[in-house]
Amino acid sequence: MSEFQPTSRTQVKRLPKRAHYDRETVYQILDTAFVCHVGFSVDGQPFVIPTNYGRSTDTLYLHGSAASRMLKTLSAGVPVCVTVTHVDGLVLARSAFHHSVNYRSVVILGTARLVEDSAEKMEALRVFTDHVMRGRWDDVRQPTEQELKATIVLALPLEEVSAKVRTGGPVDDEPDYALPVWAGVLPLQITPKQPIPDALRKNDPPIPDYLRNYSR
Amino acid sequence: MSEFQPTSRTQVKRLPKRAHYDRETVYQILDTAFVCHVGFSVDGQPFVIPTNYGRSTDTLYLHGSAASRMLKTLSAGVPVCVTVTHVDGLVLARSAFHHSVNYRSVVILGTARLVEDSAEKMEALRVFTDHVMRGRWDDVRQPTEQELKATIVLALPLEEVSAKVRTGGPVDDEPDYALPVWAGVLPLQITPKQPIPDALRKNDPPIPDYLRNYSR
Repeated sequence: MSEFQPTSRTQVKRLPKRAHYDRETVYQILDTAFVCHVGFSVDGQPFVIPTNYGRSTDTLYLHGSAASRMLKTLSAGVPVCVTVTHVDGLVLARSAFHHSVNYRSVVILGTARLVEDSAEKMEALRVFTDHVMRGRWDDVRQPTEQELKATIVLALPLEEVSAKVRTGGPVDDEPDYALPVWAGVLPLQITPKQPIPDALRKNDPPIPDYLRNYSR
Repeated sequence: MSEFQPTSRTQVKRLPKRAHYDRETVYQILDTAFVCHVGFSVDGQPFVIPTNYGRSTDTLYLHGSAASRMLKTLSAGVPVCVTVTHVDGLVLARSAFHHSVNYRSVVILGTARLVEDSAEKMEALRVFTDHVMRGRWDDVRQPTEQELKATIVLALPLEEVSAKVRTGGPVDDEPDYALPVWAGVLPLQITPKQPIPDALRKNDPPIPDYLRNYSR
């Protein structure tokens, strides 16, 4: 797949070996997470808010209540940054200084567009739902006209994008390798536990396969 | 424990029932995570960067290379937002509209102070290391004078702080409870896998207890 063109703002300066601009890496990081952190400024104060997202080719969709300050602010076309991060492990070195974290992250800069077309809006909602749990959309009651109106959907183009990835073990200073200190990586993983049925349920449909076999 | 005073900027407006301002909730969210997302603006463009942190009472410490653009920018005393998020589960409703996520997040607004005193700097590095893995600091080679100089440490006061927490099952519209759709919560948890010893090791110290029994 092709590459995103780094700009002066997305070119990774620190540890450029960790930088990636290819769509394959960017898509993989975006598609295996479902929570992003959205950064925007109000009166010179930055805010960083966690939210869900979905991706369709080179568009990232955000959504939320029409009453949300974040979405109202972003609808006005202010600059935004959306960051997605996976924490894959703790890197334990022999010196405090060389401790690190294995991670994969994507940073997207740009300006979001308010999605007004109702077909695109509905499709974005399908993308969200299936982004979090593939197959869920077809099982659930789909949005009514009123629910669509109560929801703001924003589209952020994937144009100014960079990824940063650290993998592998610690890199210690040569003399420190002789120290009697355990060194290596503690891998971390997000794992689903047993699904908890709604206490308010009035029926007992079977647990769908996409839930039983959930992984990211 | 006492409460943080909400300000016009940290008062949660959307879904205020989810808001918490007490130190107990804020500390618990901060202390069980170790990656935050830091928001700051450069030339009007917000950036959101994932990084590690540590907490000591009402101070959040950030650190990194003296070459880091983020830390150099923040050292100049610009407004910053630090957000910490736990994703605890997927909330599966009977309608697409009522799907949600169980989460715990803290948002901290303020201005960071450059830590110049070398004793405070060293203590902050101890706090970072033990924040990620309690007990690790005492086992590893501690920072040299040169490593301290290569590291920027910033202190962000916990003053303008809010937490937001969603727990529990889905809340569906009354008629939807009759739909034959599985509804409930899929809990998600960060779990450690088997530690991977460094391939470059020259000795085989035992795996320390704090690593063997790691949990957050």
